[in-house]
Amino acid sequence: MHFAEVEFVDIVEFAAVVAFAVYGIIRGAERKMDVVGLFAVAFMAAFGGGTVRDLVLNRQPLFWVENSHYTVVVFWLAVFASFFPRLLVKCEKYLVFPDALGLGLWAIAGTVYAQEAGASSFISVLLGVTTGTFGGVLADIICNKVPTIFRKSNIYATCAFVGGYLYLGLRAIDLAENAAMLISITVTVVLRLLAVRYKIILPQREYYEGDEK
Amino acid sequence: MHFAEVEFVDIVEFAAVVAFAVYGIIRGAERKMDVVGLFAVAFMAAFGGGTVRDLVLNRQPLFWVENSHYTVVVFWLAVFASFFPRLLVKCEKYLVFPDALGLGLWAIAGTVYAQEAGASSFISVLLGVTTGTFGGVLADIICNKVPTIFRKSNIYATCAFVGGYLYLGLRAIDLAENAAMLISITVTVVLRLLAVRYKIILPQREYYEGDEK
Amino acid sequence: MHFAEVEFVDIVEFAAVVAFAVYGIIRGAERKMDVVGLFAVAFMAAFGGGTVRDLVLNRQPLFWVENSHYTVVVFWLAVFASFFPRLLVKCEKYLVFPDALGLGLWAIAGTVYAQEAGASSFISVLLGVTTGTFGGVLADIICNKVPTIFRKSNIYATCAFVGGYLYLGLRAIDLAENAAMLISITVTVVLRLLAVRYKIILPQREYYEGDEK
Repeated sequence: MHFAEVEFVDIVEFAAVVAFAVYGIIRGAERKMDVVGLFAVAFMAAFGGGTVRDLVLNRQPLFWVENSHYTVVVFWLAVFASFFPRLLVKCEKYLVFPDALGLGLWAIAGTVYAQEAGASSFISVLLGVTTGTFGGVLADIICNKVPTIFRKSNIYATCAFVGGYLYLGLRAIDLAENAAMLISITVTVVLRLLAVRYKIILPQREYYEGDEK
Repeated sequence: MHFAEVEFVDIVEFAAVVAFAVYGIIRGAERKMDVVGLFAVAFMAAFGGGTVRDLVLNRQPLFWVENSHYTVVVFWLAVFASFFPRLLVKCEKYLVFPDALGLGLWAIAGTVYAQEAGASSFISVLLGVTTGTFGGVLADIICNKVPTIFRKSNIYATCAFVGGYLYLGLRAIDLAENAAMLISITVTVVLRLLAVRYKIILPQREYYEGDEK
Repeated sequence: MHFAEVEFVDIVEFAAVVAFAVYGIIRGAERKMDVVGLFAVAFMAAFGGGTVRDLVLNRQPLFWVENSHYTVVVFWLAVFASFFPRLLVKCEKYLVFPDALGLGLWAIAGTVYAQEAGASSFISVLLGVTTGTFGGVLADIICNKVPTIFRKSNIYATCAFVGGYLYLGLRAIDLAENAAMLISITVTVVLRLLAVRYKIILPQREYYEGDEK
């Protein structure tokens, strides 16, 4: 790869891979996994969402087969992290940061790729949301946690949804691609962090009368 | 899409999408999910089985990317349903109907597509069964239920199996495609409903002597 | 298929399918599944890993669609096994053998196919490991066991990793393909069996001070 060929979306993708790999590693450390387990969780978190997206869009070779250095980076991240298990456990309370960052980066990268492949607006945003959430879902399922997306909790997938449509809107008013990506990624990440901080949930009718839970 | 181009198999597919979306929504409501959760479960239930089928048969674009109005329909179904949470919870006892309907519709549509793609008879029926059961399996796994197909219970996958082979048999004696589909779908759905009503199980040797459970 | 066309890698693949089908059937029997359940678990164990590999490498048709007799063999294995449920339950203590055998056979076959498709060394070995472990992971998830690969336990994925790199090394020094496969499969299987027998685990720093568990 010549440096001149590196596009902004490649940088976003690389950052997203690292963010979700870190998420997977910390989740795995909670379960006291050994280095192979850490790598397996990191790998599925970092590549799960994008793999689904590429298969759906029939993009071959898959992004991590084409950019095989991604897998090497994740491998060494897991090996490196495995030397500092106590540090990892302490990092659990900061888990929301790689999660929010990965969500935003993946969601917009997914939307961009789906648009390039000629998908409709709704499908593009949907694939963005899928790409942005699926890695975390896989890591959570492996580690036996109920995935955030399926819990009644602070808005999560909704942030990616908003970010995806914001990107499409900014592009529709002819903003440059990179600027549109940067803005919509930032909005997604900040929205998610605010949602966690201020416990923003979706308005919802109650399932039972007087249901307080 | 021109109306004249709509084939019977398209109608079957649309009905199947709606049936499994409803199944997913009711399952999600049991877990008190918010509107995003309901949509996520409905989406995976409605499109999971067909996605596996399309990937296996290398049919690109995937059926729900090509017919992107399917995703919009599922989205609005979930939004609409989220306004009536108590009603959804009451619907749980009727869950067997969308489940049986989706099973029959998907199983036969899956068999038809696999035949068109030139798969062998056994593989065609198998893909029909996969398509017909996988959506429910995904919804159940998400909602932390043991999927019906893996439980020792009333015949389920077997109904789809019978329906698939019935379709192939009817086609072999030169019955028109639409008639063969209609008959085999009906048989599958009715068989499943009878299985639930009369607790039809497969004959089975006991795992332990005097095993009553 | 003419007999003359059968390559060594085809024999390895067939043996791997049978080994993992047996693994799936015994795991299913533990959960007292009926014949359909046994088939479903055997099917996912036998074909899960290879399906992921083929989708990643864009090898179409999938290996079990092209060789549709594989599915028929697994079907009759499950039907046959369902007549001897008590025997299956007794076989549980020998589960390590089909598991180790399937791991070795699948891992090397996966590495070979990835090399043929032009993947990098690391990706090839990784896909070998994925192919060798994913079937067992699926069967374990279905049967509600924590998959071996994610547990802190005797080395498992590591054996496949060693075997895959051994294969590449032997090929690099110009050993014939079949000999390289035979040696690296044997090493993988024996290593795994030794790991179980002598409780070989990866060296690991402790998660907590004085952590004994």
